[in-house]
Amino acid sequence: MTERIHTLAIIGVGLIGGSLSLALKKHNAVGRVIGVGRSQANLDEALRLGVIDAVATIEDAAEADIIFVATPVAQMPRVFAELAAHLGEHSIISDGGSTKQDVTRAARLALGDKFSQFIPAHPIAGTEKTGAAAAFATLFEKRKTIICAEAETSPDATERVTQMWHTAGAEIHRMSAAEHDDVFAAVSHLPHLLAFALVDMLAGMPRSADYFNYAASGFRDFTRIAAGSPEMWRDISVANRVALRQQLTAYRARLDDFDRWLSNAVTEDVAAIEQAYTRAATARRAWQRHVEHGEPMPRFSTGGQVE
Amino acid sequence: MTERIHTLAIIGVGLIGGSLSLALKKHNAVGRVIGVGRSQANLDEALRLGVIDAVATIEDAAEADIIFVATPVAQMPRVFAELAAHLGEHSIISDGGSTKQDVTRAARLALGDKFSQFIPAHPIAGTEKTGAAAAFATLFEKRKTIICAEAETSPDATERVTQMWHTAGAEIHRMSAAEHDDVFAAVSHLPHLLAFALVDMLAGMPRSADYFNYAASGFRDFTRIAAGSPEMWRDISVANRVALRQQLTAYRARLDDFDRWLSNAVTEDVAAIEQAYTRAATARRAWQRHVEHGEPMPRFSTGGQVE
Repeated sequence: MTERIHTLAIIGVGLIGGSLSLALKKHNAVGRVIGVGRSQANLDEALRLGVIDAVATIEDAAEADIIFVATPVAQMPRVFAELAAHLGEHSIISDGGSTKQDVTRAARLALGDKFSQFIPAHPIAGTEKTGAAAAFATLFEKRKTIICAEAETSPDATERVTQMWHTAGAEIHRMSAAEHDDVFAAVSHLPHLLAFALVDMLAGMPRSADYFNYAASGFRDFTRIAAGSPEMWRDISVANRVALRQQLTAYRARLDDFDRWLSNAVTEDVAAIEQAYTRAATARRAWQRHVEHGEPMPRFSTGGQVE
Repeated sequence: MTERIHTLAIIGVGLIGGSLSLALKKHNAVGRVIGVGRSQANLDEALRLGVIDAVATIEDAAEADIIFVATPVAQMPRVFAELAAHLGEHSIISDGGSTKQDVTRAARLALGDKFSQFIPAHPIAGTEKTGAAAAFATLFEKRKTIICAEAETSPDATERVTQMWHTAGAEIHRMSAAEHDDVFAAVSHLPHLLAFALVDMLAGMPRSADYFNYAASGFRDFTRIAAGSPEMWRDISVANRVALRQQLTAYRARLDDFDRWLSNAVTEDVAAIEQAYTRAATARRAWQRHVEHGEPMPRFSTGGQVE
């Protein structure tokens, strides 16, 4: 049975933190939500919209039943340090950061023997919009939330955070922080870097005006994620740089292959390009059916293409 | 005043060729449309749907007022050669290929002193669907069609093809074939290669099942174009490989920068990442406003970021 949360503290009342509050309020699963943030205007807006019930200090927040840290990941070490001094004995801290190894490391360092009260989590949801005004109660419905418990992590606290996300409508998945960071480097952080890199490159070229004038729907979709927050993605890229560089290194090696194939363009090279494009198109179409209709993904042989 | 087309021949009755036919029929701008193709089933479907009025041989097609070659670009050299022997004195050939220098070269070679009757063109439109059944009359409305006339190209024939595309609803733009191939290498062919390369790489990795399981909306948009036709994009990549490799080389150099910045991650490196992401986000957001509201694109300083 789900236990009601008496007080939820949100540190960073933006799209993610605010939407969690609204989702729990909608299901009557929380008594009182208090908010901590750096922008008074945003906190005022959050109050006005009923996203939070009161503005609080970090000391107040540290005594809440659940303290949800939804700041950019680069600010979390300082937030954890401030919470540590005042953390209630039964208070649980969780977070919504897009990277998990660095956040867990920071929490371990800051919280010391209270580290068992920290539940590393990552709700896979978001829009291009930011701030409390962008929050909505159904953001997490049918989306995944990843929980990355460590050896010391309290099972009871993990269960409470699991229930909280379940109430908000999310599917709960569990994996290690290292697995998490590898997966999201591959399917999120690298694509963002690649899209930012392309648009930045084109913007810096002498013919950029022509390029942007003739860019069409393929470009639109490919680069949509390059409109995201530069600060947020800078932080994520740097925080997860070890896993991100592993994926980037593999990708650069593939681009070296493509350049060689295009340079020679003999029959075998053209066949290698077709083989790579075919495996990609097969996988991408299967993924679409997987997402839309729940069809299982086919297995692909691992490794590179014909050389 | 627009002159009505008595007979239009479509070589390759797919999405592009079929949609041009339907658009001209809708505006009563064509008398009779004949179709040539390799798949009898597709031609039967085109007939049944009224996309074409009759199935024809390439000899018949060569006598039409306008012959629109809408096959994959790799097949165009052979089509031009077959048309050359029978080409009517006043017949105009045009094409819908995504690359222009190679198509123009092939036409020049095949058509000899009839090359002035060839109008190289590229309608910037498409969907993921293929075949005559996917064709629809409004595909080209408010989309751009690029015409890349050469020195020898007949001005009268250019004007007729311009009028034809205008009737189909397209905006006409003119540039050289070299400019065309550079622009579309940058904003279309490279993004396709990058999306195919990413999905292919992930499909070939030991943890691919996890990757595809946790891929979300950013991945969906970034990789949508990797579901495109492998054969078509293989042909385009190879046909435009000189311009594509120029863009790919510039892009690989940028990825080298990102790898170095992530590797060291000292203050200057993090600032360089932020600067690149910021220019990209600024350009991408401006482009969206440009496309949606006609706002002018800002000018960006050319060249790389801080090193």
